[in-house]
Amino acid sequence: MDNEDFRRHAHILVDWMADYMESVEDYPVRAQVEPGEIAARLPEGPPEEGESMERIFADFRRDVLPGMTHWQHPSFFAYFPANSSPPSVLAEMLTATLAAQCMLWQTSPAATEMETRMMDWLRRMIGLPEGFHGAIQDSASSATLCALLTARERETGWAAAEQGLGVLGGTGRQLAVYASAEAHSSVEKDVMVAGLGRENLRKIPAGDDFALRPEILAEAVEADLDRGITPACVIATLGTTGTGGFDRLGPLGEICRAHGIWLHVDAAWAGSALILPEQRWMIEGIEAVDSFVFNPHKWLFTNFDCSAYFVRDPEALTRTLAINPAYLASREGGRVIDYRDWGVPLGRRFRALKLWFVIRSYGTEELRRRLASHIAWAQELAGQVAADPAFDLVTPVSLALFNFRHHPPGLDDEAELDRLNERLLEALNDSGRLYLTQNRVRGRYAIRFSVGQTNTTRDHVQGAWETIKETAASL
Amino acid sequence: MDNEDFRRHAHILVDWMADYMESVEDYPVRAQVEPGEIAARLPEGPPEEGESMERIFADFRRDVLPGMTHWQHPSFFAYFPANSSPPSVLAEMLTATLAAQCMLWQTSPAATEMETRMMDWLRRMIGLPEGFHGAIQDSASSATLCALLTARERETGWAAAEQGLGVLGGTGRQLAVYASAEAHSSVEKDVMVAGLGRENLRKIPAGDDFALRPEILAEAVEADLDRGITPACVIATLGTTGTGGFDRLGPLGEICRAHGIWLHVDAAWAGSALILPEQRWMIEGIEAVDSFVFNPHKWLFTNFDCSAYFVRDPEALTRTLAINPAYLASREGGRVIDYRDWGVPLGRRFRALKLWFVIRSYGTEELRRRLASHIAWAQELAGQVAADPAFDLVTPVSLALFNFRHHPPGLDDEAELDRLNERLLEALNDSGRLYLTQNRVRGRYAIRFSVGQTNTTRDHVQGAWETIKETAASL
Repeated sequence: MDNEDFRRHAHILVDWMADYMESVEDYPVRAQVEPGEIAARLPEGPPEEGESMERIFADFRRDVLPGMTHWQHPSFFAYFPANSSPPSVLAEMLTATLAAQCMLWQTSPAATEMETRMMDWLRRMIGLPEGFHGAIQDSASSATLCALLTARERETGWAAAEQGLGVLGGTGRQLAVYASAEAHSSVEKDVMVAGLGRENLRKIPAGDDFALRPEILAEAVEADLDRGITPACVIATLGTTGTGGFDRLGPLGEICRAHGIWLHVDAAWAGSALILPEQRWMIEGIEAVDSFVFNPHKWLFTNFDCSAYFVRDPEALTRTLAINPAYLASREGGRVIDYRDWGVPLGRRFRALKLWFVIRSYGTEELRRRLASHIAWAQELAGQVAADPAFDLVTPVSLALFNFRHHPPGLDDEAELDRLNERLLEALNDSGRLYLTQNRVRGRYAIRFSVGQTNTTRDHVQGAWETIKETAASL
Repeated sequence: MDNEDFRRHAHILVDWMADYMESVEDYPVRAQVEPGEIAARLPEGPPEEGESMERIFADFRRDVLPGMTHWQHPSFFAYFPANSSPPSVLAEMLTATLAAQCMLWQTSPAATEMETRMMDWLRRMIGLPEGFHGAIQDSASSATLCALLTARERETGWAAAEQGLGVLGGTGRQLAVYASAEAHSSVEKDVMVAGLGRENLRKIPAGDDFALRPEILAEAVEADLDRGITPACVIATLGTTGTGGFDRLGPLGEICRAHGIWLHVDAAWAGSALILPEQRWMIEGIEAVDSFVFNPHKWLFTNFDCSAYFVRDPEALTRTLAINPAYLASREGGRVIDYRDWGVPLGRRFRALKLWFVIRSYGTEELRRRLASHIAWAQELAGQVAADPAFDLVTPVSLALFNFRHHPPGLDDEAELDRLNERLLEALNDSGRLYLTQNRVRGRYAIRFSVGQTNTTRDHVQGAWETIKETAASL
């Protein structure tokens, strides 16, 4: 494929891409295929001779597309959104073309300096105070891992990285981590990766509002101290994945300050809503926070991966993660930021470009308007669910997220209600008309509803409600 | 920006992209800007109102492009290549448009099943035996971290993840990791991340051939056992970053088998050359290997990120990394692969698509021809360097990599030679005509030369040699 072939095929693809964006509603939201169905269409081995792009692209449309779940469908209400947008896709096209490795300033000065600037734009947009410095990570999982590692090292005087946690154990210095029982599963995974041990993650019960109960956290910290275990890190969640709970930073910060504990905030989903000044209540108490992550790739119209990780003390982070072999030295070292030292992977894509395209193309006003709409539509729908005698609102609406269940009047056997709602969810997702996620709230089956796809309108949300009611009635 | 705006701008971008690919040689290879120069062109805060894509794209060309180091320039001989290609860029355009989260089978069946198939295509292409199962990671750093974590857990009966390494230390079960002193810096970083401690990484000296010396490894293992330290993992490197050394899997495998040690292979760069049957000597002894990583995003024309991680025992990997909250359950669980359990981040892009495009578009024959050419041109040049009385070949050519230095006859002060070669490197990179990386070999300054960019021809390699000779003569 020479350059002219590329030009020709790229134009063909662009028309398909624009058509796809226009017609994405014609596809079922969740792929309607059986396990193995797509694999069966793919040859077992690679071709010896090159094939034409006409054929490859035709196969993509015929063999791949039917097996995709369409995350950019406006009736995607599952998980959290991973909302892309036209300006973001344009930026990704350029990033792929430049194909630069943005590990060192020298290997990509513009990417590095734009990353610094975009992180500061985001910081201002979400109302984080000055003094927070950001870097793009692939995911909140990775950002929280960085937070845990930095906390681990600060607490051990960088001895864990040097001597290993095994040696520390010999001296009785076990470390403990604290998070809400509602915190994301990545917290548990990161604790395991960091070698801290799942048993040393204290899952602090949440109250009726799904917020971690500070008084129980304080007790857990005291209990660990009494046993000679060192509290190393508290992870507060703003917007828990299942229930949309908000841990209160103020009381958590007090406990952390009293004991010198690292306070990390996982606002992966809800953080984007901080662009709305009326939602800033959730970062009251931010003064005591050491690190903070939120994902523009969830709810800020920016393609995955783009997770914004902010720290107050970049030196603690880079001291934890920097390694300096000769072949990665550069004459600018020390005078510039080399972002390879801000995360685990060495290689890095030029991810700041899509933020620049998205924020400039929409402007902050339009971004606020869109998120406010998502929230308003979710709240409207949650009100309708609550008012319907055949449905329960299982969790109060939190920003653009709530949980509900079908509860026909008179049917009060909980096990039967679980089965009924599981059948309802499968029927809805099998219809291809919308996509929702199952959940468990206080042990009972619930259906999660999350609004945030770029092209979702009030009509899509209301249409989903009609489909849910009809389907429930037909069971 | 509506769909028609997107279509229009995407067509404009495509023409720019094709023009860029055609004219990339008109740019200096390494960006010729000073620290802060690009940042100064970017506004301090985000715009309140949206801006036109005409303006954003014009700013990209005016303000960003001059600050980029052009990794796709055919005279890029620095680091290792991160070679992209037209079919890979086309696939990235589609991946960005679908913008699917490929964490679970259900959220992207086609992406999941294609990933399994593409990993098997790669396995066949590089001659790994059956029984290796692959998943795409972002980087070799992350893949090697997965290997270390799995080794750590297998060695401790999954107690490290559960109880933490601190508890294990109390029982005297320190773990040790072994790698060549020439191994990549990510090994050291990963050992620190995993909580094993840098002091427990034994850097085994390499011989004159830059290969880890098995007899010293055997001694180190015995010494650790004598002290009650458990050998957990040996990391063999195929193609060390600085010098292109190859650890010999046969002797390493014997030691690992004798002691039940996990054997991981880091073939990040050199692994792509295994598509050439004549290079398969490097995996002699593969029978004893537990895990293996190589990066198609380095030398196989596939955009970053695309690191291929193979394991013999996927259950050991997923047992190390799986977490199963209610909101990530799916009805297919257990019958399908959910790749989220094969790595640290939860979110995943549809990365298999670009492999499918690249392998099919080139065909394996053409891929082999291109890599064989890179190797032949590097070998030709290394021969010329060795034959030139004003230059030393500092390391023998290894595939498409060698180190050299300028050594004017009669100048034998080593410190002066170091300074001279540093000046030579800076002069070459400042010229913008080519891009090379500094190195240290046996303590002395050397210049690394690595061939592998997609559009590099013999003329570019020979042209670089002319530039090097001229520049050296002018110092």
